Amino acid sequence: MRYYIILLTALMTIVATADAKTITSSQSSANERLSDYIDPQIGSEGLGRVFIGPSAPFGMVRPGPDCTPSPNSGWLPMPERVDGFAQVHVSGTGGGPKYGNILIQPFSGNLTATKHHAHRLNEEIKPGYYSTTFEESGITTEITTTPRTTAYRISYPSDTPDKPNSLMIDAGFFLGENPVPDSREAQQFVGSEVQVVSDHEIAGYSRIRGGWNNGRAYTVYFHLSSDTPFSQVATWKGDSITNDPYQYDSGEKTGALVSFPPGSDTINVKIGISFISQLKAQRNLISESEGKDFETIHSELLDSWDDMMNRIKLHPSTPADMKRMFYTAFYHTLIMPSDRSGENPLWTDPGVPYYDDFYALWDTYRTSMPLLAIIAPERLCDIVNSLVNIGKRDGYMPDARSGNANGRTQGGSNAEVVIADACVKGIKSIDYEEALKMMLVDATIPPGGNEEAEGRGGLREYISLGYIPHGIPRAGNRTVEYSLCDFAIYQVAHQLGHDELADRYLKQSESWKNLWRDDYEHDGAKGFIMPRDAEGNWLDEIPFGKSKTHKPTFRYTPLTFEGPWYTPWWNMFFYEASSWEYSLSIPHDVDGLIEKCGGPKAFDQRLDTFFSKNYFNVNNEPSFLSPCLYHWIGRPDKTADTIRRIIEENYNDSPTGLPGNDDSGAMSSWLMFNLAGIYPNAGHDYYIIHSPLLRSTTFSVGEGKTFSIVADNLSDTNRHIIAATLNGKPYNLSTLRHSDIISGGELRLKMGPKPSGWGKRMHAN
Amino acid sequence: MRYYIILLTALMTIVATADAKTITSSQSSANERLSDYIDPQIGSEGLGRVFIGPSAPFGMVRPGPDCTPSPNSGWLPMPERVDGFAQVHVSGTGGGPKYGNILIQPFSGNLTATKHHAHRLNEEIKPGYYSTTFEESGITTEITTTPRTTAYRISYPSDTPDKPNSLMIDAGFFLGENPVPDSREAQQFVGSEVQVVSDHEIAGYSRIRGGWNNGRAYTVYFHLSSDTPFSQVATWKGDSITNDPYQYDSGEKTGALVSFPPGSDTINVKIGISFISQLKAQRNLISESEGKDFETIHSELLDSWDDMMNRIKLHPSTPADMKRMFYTAFYHTLIMPSDRSGENPLWTDPGVPYYDDFYALWDTYRTSMPLLAIIAPERLCDIVNSLVNIGKRDGYMPDARSGNANGRTQGGSNAEVVIADACVKGIKSIDYEEALKMMLVDATIPPGGNEEAEGRGGLREYISLGYIPHGIPRAGNRTVEYSLCDFAIYQVAHQLGHDELADRYLKQSESWKNLWRDDYEHDGAKGFIMPRDAEGNWLDEIPFGKSKTHKPTFRYTPLTFEGPWYTPWWNMFFYEASSWEYSLSIPHDVDGLIEKCGGPKAFDQRLDTFFSKNYFNVNNEPSFLSPCLYHWIGRPDKTADTIRRIIEENYNDSPTGLPGNDDSGAMSSWLMFNLAGIYPNAGHDYYIIHSPLLRSTTFSVGEGKTFSIVADNLSDTNRHIIAATLNGKPYNLSTLRHSDIISGGELRLKMGPKPSGWGKRMHAN
Repeated sequence: MRYYIILLTALMTIVATADAKTITSSQSSANERLSDYIDPQIGSEGLGRVFIGPSAPFGMVRPGPDCTPSPNSGWLPMPERVDGFAQVHVSGTGGGPKYGNILIQPFSGNLTATKHHAHRLNEEIKPGYYSTTFEESGITTEITTTPRTTAYRISYPSDTPDKPNSLMIDAGFFLGENPVPDSREAQQFVGSEVQVVSDHEIAGYSRIRGGWNNGRAYTVYFHLSSDTPFSQVATWKGDSITNDPYQYDSGEKTGALVSFPPGSDTINVKIGISFISQLKAQRNLISESEGKDFETIHSELLDSWDDMMNRIKLHPSTPADMKRMFYTAFYHTLIMPSDRSGENPLWTDPGVPYYDDFYALWDTYRTSMPLLAIIAPERLCDIVNSLVNIGKRDGYMPDARSGNANGRTQGGSNAEVVIADACVKGIKSIDYEEALKMMLVDATIPPGGNEEAEGRGGLREYISLGYIPHGIPRAGNRTVEYSLCDFAIYQVAHQLGHDELADRYLKQSESWKNLWRDDYEHDGAKGFIMPRDAEGNWLDEIPFGKSKTHKPTFRYTPLTFEGPWYTPWWNMFFYEASSWEYSLSIPHDVDGLIEKCGGPKAFDQRLDTFFSKNYFNVNNEPSFLSPCLYHWIGRPDKTADTIRRIIEENYNDSPTGLPGNDDSGAMSSWLMFNLAGIYPNAGHDYYIIHSPLLRSTTFSVGEGKTFSIVADNLSDTNRHIIAATLNGKPYNLSTLRHSDIISGGELRLKMGPKPSGWGKRMHAN
Repeated sequence: MRYYIILLTALMTIVATADAKTITSSQSSANERLSDYIDPQIGSEGLGRVFIGPSAPFGMVRPGPDCTPSPNSGWLPMPERVDGFAQVHVSGTGGGPKYGNILIQPFSGNLTATKHHAHRLNEEIKPGYYSTTFEESGITTEITTTPRTTAYRISYPSDTPDKPNSLMIDAGFFLGENPVPDSREAQQFVGSEVQVVSDHEIAGYSRIRGGWNNGRAYTVYFHLSSDTPFSQVATWKGDSITNDPYQYDSGEKTGALVSFPPGSDTINVKIGISFISQLKAQRNLISESEGKDFETIHSELLDSWDDMMNRIKLHPSTPADMKRMFYTAFYHTLIMPSDRSGENPLWTDPGVPYYDDFYALWDTYRTSMPLLAIIAPERLCDIVNSLVNIGKRDGYMPDARSGNANGRTQGGSNAEVVIADACVKGIKSIDYEEALKMMLVDATIPPGGNEEAEGRGGLREYISLGYIPHGIPRAGNRTVEYSLCDFAIYQVAHQLGHDELADRYLKQSESWKNLWRDDYEHDGAKGFIMPRDAEGNWLDEIPFGKSKTHKPTFRYTPLTFEGPWYTPWWNMFFYEASSWEYSLSIPHDVDGLIEKCGGPKAFDQRLDTFFSKNYFNVNNEPSFLSPCLYHWIGRPDKTADTIRRIIEENYNDSPTGLPGNDDSGAMSSWLMFNLAGIYPNAGHDYYIIHSPLLRSTTFSVGEGKTFSIVADNLSDTNRHIIAATLNGKPYNLSTLRHSDIISGGELRLKMGPKPSGWGKRMHAN
């Protein structure tokens, strides 16, 4: 679905007319908290699927309501039913759901039932805070969180003397339960346990396998502590509720029910979570929340977000709506992956950070990770070290990982691009030699039966034929993406002085050309990445199935996105994109691509067709860089026009303001870069400069330094860069080096109504 | 090392002269417990490495002393130092150690140190029981066990008023700790936790990764309960001892120290163990040992062994020493794999059993599993269903598995042979269609980067070239063993009526011939399995290493067992054997082998050379069937002579009575079959009949039926079968069908001093 709005265009006009010196109502005051601009509802409806509950930056827990039918983020808009509040969720994901563990639900009544569904009378969704009042019971639940402990304030109505104030703790709940055993990408129950530890504490765990990445079992331990002692307790296993103080794990669902004494109308409950043990869950609770009330926890959470938000400042005159879009996008980018350092049940390597929920790097390597390279290089360093360590311990670095298991490669082995990006940008405290070893594992050791989970599926064919023949799932985008990953290896090997290795992989990074069908014409464009069999034949008709009597096929064209219903979509030639898109998705060799497309003029026309006919697909990542391709033919003005139109037509500050799954912030970070007027080409050390939609953006780049991008005279009309200075000196290149940014300084762009010819060249020789 | 004894020869004479009707001192009385003949010390020293502590059949726990330097089974003979008593061990294994978790150690003194090493004054090692008295402290520790709970009776000397009676519980201990990080096959610490649960209970866990199979982390939970309250407690983390009641997991080693009140000189301690959770450990303790004293637990344990031992009865006149060898071998065969049904942290499939510690099937498929097919088909059924289920959940069935992780394939994907053996023998309640699917996963999907852990490494080459070229680890035995595994697929496919599939795999089972170098001569034999490169060239010199200037090689001959020191032994052409051995190890096509060897006469001579020159290697499994090969050329008398000589020279009832690692009972079950006079060819439904070394052996084969093998007139001189009857009718074939055995009945062999020509034919038609 697409949401065309005109709001943004209107906003642009406001920005433009508001002179920098004019005081406007939205100007920042001394007490302004940038976290106030976070609106967790943006992108929560429609395709965005962002998580709306409170979350710390890269937090391990994400508590929020779980509605039926269970969506990926747990939440659905009213009037859907609320089953309770689970402590762990992911944000912006597609595919089968993951997590949704340790569900609590307040209710009024005796301890006689294990389900307490409710409906919302209202809800409030704010940064670091969620609250709702239930229609049936009148109970209000407020939620906030620390990185590893969730905090609830539950207010029961005071006028129900015959119905005790009660709470359900369900250790068996999880998202996406499917009655079909082993249903693809569905989570499956393994076991659970619950235990009344004291008169105000309940502990236990939930063990679940499967889900989106078809991962091994993970265990979520919890330690719940109430500020009010229980007056009554019960536990359950399966359908049987008993007075036993505990239910051990026998492969069945368990839970606990507690009541509070009459008159205890406001209850504060905290739940420490751990992925390694019961006592660690308790420890996380103590160390992060002991002695802190709900307000303090919420306030500290906002502080932690402000610490991040303050790293990018917008011009004081930026309208509040625009700030809301920008800072919410920033917030979305920083929710995942999950920092689980010290919470890894698989190995302990002291001092080495551990991140999980790479969901997936295929989504985030393009813009989310490059954003960290600018504003949080220490975090990117930790993430890269975690990736390399996972590779060392688990055999392969993840392309995607969740619940402590690699799983669900989308296309390439994209940890390689993240490493190359960090390497060329000089991110410190990473052993790039070790990292290169793991990159070479991806590039040389086929993952065998595990090729949907990690490494490079079809690697042997890729190496021996130079491309992946049709018949191997995702043959098209794997070929294209492995080429980029090979380039990433080249970059790191080159930086480290391994020239022979670098040369080999630079050459191999041209493999995409082996699927380039030169003579294939479609809608005025010539040359496309197209299916090819192992014998080298181009395929117009794609075979499927095996039968002695029938040879079924279906026609494949550059616009084919999904196959017919009888073809599994994750096994198509391209993943989440058409050939029109992937044939423009060669970020490491755009010059080579232009040549293949018949030169600059043909390329220009091809891009025009691509965007005007909506062959461009805004809601997935393969075309993220495509609007910037005009830069390579000296037309930054067309890049600017295209990006502005894409944003205006697809992004806004409403709940449906994201045009696709946010993919743990990938869509959001794409938006941020493009609003600011720079765009990274991951694995390279430069940024495309194009027309900002923001008056000014100032990045904190460490050591007290800042780098600002200022667009003078920006307006809806003045949308083209007609001149530029970098640190006061004229600057005519249409790209910027990472070193220019982290040195601090100012890129000042003079905006005008028509292209001036500025920026015809991308690089200084 | 070899132990040449004459004891056995002497015993033979006694057996032979004792007429069936004569009462001898060793004849069974009405109160005889067959478990009395179990001597856990047989095979505990030298290479055998059997576990000497108490263990239930297929038990989950195996408590025993852990000595320094830590050997695979924990135990070493006096005077080595005892570090304590750990709850989990394996039996008879080679390679890097595994387990050795949750170490307790009684001591006299204050709670000021975390190590309490001791030396033994004496020790008693009996079936289901272990005890030792420490030299320094005078403390006596007695140990027995249930399947999942260990029981200790600790007697402190009563005359040490100034030194409290104390106990150390070390949650961080494990076998084979190596200071070198990531040392191959060494266990590595992940985390641990300990908690004083009450005045007489301690709980916690130990999480360890690596070890022999280089497996993922496994967790051993414990719940310790003492019959005497603690008077003092302390806990530790790292080097720091504190009064904290618990130590949460922060990736460091933890433990607890407790003292008992003065005068509490005999303490009973029970430790419930679980691989899934704390409460399950407690539950295992309660359900298996609550209300039972040490003696009762020991007595019930002996009952469970007698239940197994009673399934095979020897002739009443069999000398006690011989019974001890036989029943101890029987006992060794039933220690592993570990029945962990309901204890799987990875998935819950209700009703499906779960076994771990296949260590390895490569060792046990030949004789241990076939033994179960006769005397415990319900157990074999559970094991096969577990293997198939592991395959379904983890991707591949294990060849070896420990700590819930596949790992360390020795050669083939031998779960296939186990399944084929069960299938041709008609073991019920197995879905052979599902099993076949998993067999085909092994045979068609390369395990990629995981090929040391599971599946068939080098599968692509095996399929495309018909053999595994040199350069891929274990190219020789993998080729030979995959051929057998292909035959296993043929067997199952054939039974299920999948003729086309059966034909294909029968043909592929001839792949061993592609490594048969026809013209290679060595010591009078012609034709050997020899290294070959991918281009088809035979290699006399094996290359190793990569250097531009040097092309180092070493000479490979049919006697090469290990390469020079600079070659990793697990990557040799053959694993644990020479070409002389593997060139005779084609159990599924002995007729084809004889032809390749130049016909029956050449084969006869080759076997003579093989055994007379000791090219036969008694201490590993590849040559298990070799002595029986004489049967295929109509010389069961030579089989008999060879086997008798091998047993006499290599097996006895002393601590060094096993000639190699027992390999969780593989050596022992080989011995049992050969003492009884039948020998299985795993994956086939027949048994070789050869001269027993036992007067009579009676198998309980279910439904109240028995099958007896009786050797009339057996003596050291009368060692040849001169005639036979099956259920009273003359029987001239030298093999027996499985159906003959499970129908019940009697095979009566008339023994004489010289071969009569009996048994020239193996099969009818």
